[in-house]
Amino acid sequence: MNQYDVSHLPAILFALLAATKLLGLLAQRLGQPSVVGELVAGVILGKSVLGILDPTDLVIRNLAELGVIVLLFEIGLHTDIRSIARVGGAAMGVAIAGVAVPFVLGYGICIALGLSALPAIVAGAALTATSIGISARTLSDLGQLRTPEGQIVLGAAVIDDVVGLVILSVVAGLVGGTALSISAVVSAASIGIGFIALALVLGNLFVPPFFRFIDRVEASGTLGIAGLSFALLLSWLAAFAGSATIIGAFAAGVILHNTPQRPRIERATTSLGLFFVPIFFAAVGAAVELGTLANRQALAIGSMLFVVGVAGKIAAGYAPFWISGRKLLIGIAMVPRGEVGLIFAQMGLATAALTPGLFSAIAIMVLGTTLITPPLLAYLVRSEAHTSDDLERPGEGGIDDLVSGTIEWKAIHPSASQGESGDTST
Amino acid sequence: MNQYDVSHLPAILFALLAATKLLGLLAQRLGQPSVVGELVAGVILGKSVLGILDPTDLVIRNLAELGVIVLLFEIGLHTDIRSIARVGGAAMGVAIAGVAVPFVLGYGICIALGLSALPAIVAGAALTATSIGISARTLSDLGQLRTPEGQIVLGAAVIDDVVGLVILSVVAGLVGGTALSISAVVSAASIGIGFIALALVLGNLFVPPFFRFIDRVEASGTLGIAGLSFALLLSWLAAFAGSATIIGAFAAGVILHNTPQRPRIERATTSLGLFFVPIFFAAVGAAVELGTLANRQALAIGSMLFVVGVAGKIAAGYAPFWISGRKLLIGIAMVPRGEVGLIFAQMGLATAALTPGLFSAIAIMVLGTTLITPPLLAYLVRSEAHTSDDLERPGEGGIDDLVSGTIEWKAIHPSASQGESGDTST
Repeated sequence: MNQYDVSHLPAILFALLAATKLLGLLAQRLGQPSVVGELVAGVILGKSVLGILDPTDLVIRNLAELGVIVLLFEIGLHTDIRSIARVGGAAMGVAIAGVAVPFVLGYGICIALGLSALPAIVAGAALTATSIGISARTLSDLGQLRTPEGQIVLGAAVIDDVVGLVILSVVAGLVGGTALSISAVVSAASIGIGFIALALVLGNLFVPPFFRFIDRVEASGTLGIAGLSFALLLSWLAAFAGSATIIGAFAAGVILHNTPQRPRIERATTSLGLFFVPIFFAAVGAAVELGTLANRQALAIGSMLFVVGVAGKIAAGYAPFWISGRKLLIGIAMVPRGEVGLIFAQMGLATAALTPGLFSAIAIMVLGTTLITPPLLAYLVRSEAHTSDDLERPGEGGIDDLVSGTIEWKAIHPSASQGESGDTST
Repeated sequence: MNQYDVSHLPAILFALLAATKLLGLLAQRLGQPSVVGELVAGVILGKSVLGILDPTDLVIRNLAELGVIVLLFEIGLHTDIRSIARVGGAAMGVAIAGVAVPFVLGYGICIALGLSALPAIVAGAALTATSIGISARTLSDLGQLRTPEGQIVLGAAVIDDVVGLVILSVVAGLVGGTALSISAVVSAASIGIGFIALALVLGNLFVPPFFRFIDRVEASGTLGIAGLSFALLLSWLAAFAGSATIIGAFAAGVILHNTPQRPRIERATTSLGLFFVPIFFAAVGAAVELGTLANRQALAIGSMLFVVGVAGKIAAGYAPFWISGRKLLIGIAMVPRGEVGLIFAQMGLATAALTPGLFSAIAIMVLGTTLITPPLLAYLVRSEAHTSDDLERPGEGGIDDLVSGTIEWKAIHPSASQGESGDTST
């Protein structure tokens, strides 16, 4: 009746929030990380089943993008850069092996199946990048993000994302018909690495005094909004420089990690995350087409890609041979591919480098690696708890839960009795 | 470089949040409600000045729509329906006079200026509906929302919105060439009124037990998300039934007002509001084209519409002659037109019922009424504080501040010591 209604967005968001919350709680009841419930909720809401949530819709895509920005900002806020730097060598090893092994295996399988070089390269590339959002959230759901292994995975996933962007720009050139150029590769790599280095150095110099200033003039949640604004700014700068928005959001969190204002910024971000983050996971789930499972050839190739996708990342977990630690846990945590793999597949399909069948095969690999990781990790962590070789590790899970949102709402809003609120009369 | 970046949305939101916060704080320093700073920030970010914020952009429109949904949900949460019912007669009087007087005056002026009937009707209609968001937020900034006068304004603005939707559907029919039909008017009116009545009755029966249940199974902010989901659901149902989303959001808040879970739902909503609500106000501001001020004829007609727009609503404040109270405050609080007036103007322009000049005149009226109200009200409230005739009214402003966000971040997160958080080890 009223032609000026904006859209059905309220209805879509209602369905999304209700379904992710419900299935997230159900997953927890079943001993699974709640992220698995949110992904499944997305699959159900997506076009495969109900057709309510369209992940290609412009508004949903942007809300999901804000969701992954908020998520990576939260993860960054909980990340002490020194603890990642301490495991930097191991993270680098895991990242490099985790890109090389799956790429070579995936490429090899496609060539062995008689595909030509270009589709084989795209399929191999889709196997390279771990989904940092899904990895970190799962580790956090299981209280493992702040263990040495969790920090290695986090570091490797960040490096991996930078490498993934380099590969993406190279593959985009290849499918577009450009020849491979060393200078393009070097430039893409230096932008990714340079952005993080520059952001951390300049950020640590100029940002803490700025937030100290904001803290003094504060009124009405200014600090929370300032933190989020900073994350949005770095996200955009990262994308503008040719890196990924999530790298910027993560860097913003890392820079604010050591400020005394962090707890309040964290609280504000967590509240926003409870709304935005499920949109991201549901959108990842909704991008999955269950119909592809009926395509036998796609299912066969997809299964093979899935196997090398899992095996390649698990092997990568053992790459830092010089460290002691739970290498199987590292490897499994690196398995989920998520949105980056889908971006490769969509690019390949759009440029006709991939047939619809091969596209579906990659989608099957993405779905499989994403959905198998949380239960596998949960199983691994639980079975470890019953063995003795890891008992020197104390029970963690406190602060991690802030990221995952698995704690009581009230618990994340500590006492306000510290004052400073001259303005209220209640 | 990366063709898969979603958009410049992070940069736009960064600019929006930073500018609204900065100018909001500046407005407060100058003794003005912060909403005036947010509106001015929107004007500056809009195409008139910087061209960063495009309020017609699909994503921005949807985020702004979410902003006004969150805002009206917050206002509803603070609204005791009984205190509005107590002033129901007065609110009805203000609403009816506030629609009729500006419409007749606006129509008359346009006819007197030699315009034909259709554009005169559109211009008159654009003068009718008060912007409930701007009114309620301004009253709340000034600590006046919970006074009897504040409740009358809130009630009148809700009725006004229903009436506005009726007029909108009638005018949409007229500019579309349909003849005026009594049955269409009656049906539009009954849908608007019927929706609220039905929502309140059914909601009060079924919603509290449901939220009691959620409270028991609660984990991780479920209550906050459940409240927001309910607001989104009613928003969509309202729009679906032919009423406005904001009516649904307001009704959802009113229904949850009496539940014991309200404080926690409120806290979650306030956190989201700090992000979403400024997007709405900035988008309203950005829809203003300062360039129209250079068009002399538009400026002349716009000034006349502005004068009758202000005078008509102030007169409406005196319509409930049988009550005692600050009638001037009621009238001034009803003055801002905001987004509804712009919707009329855009509809008129799109259907060629309005010339660009008359469109600009209406835009000037909207800008003027929106920007003049907060400082006028602030002046009135301050001058009242120095006179004695109103001293029986105690200093309010406690709970209202939750809506306006003018209190310290920490202060809105009361003690978590009440327990229930078995899940945290920090």
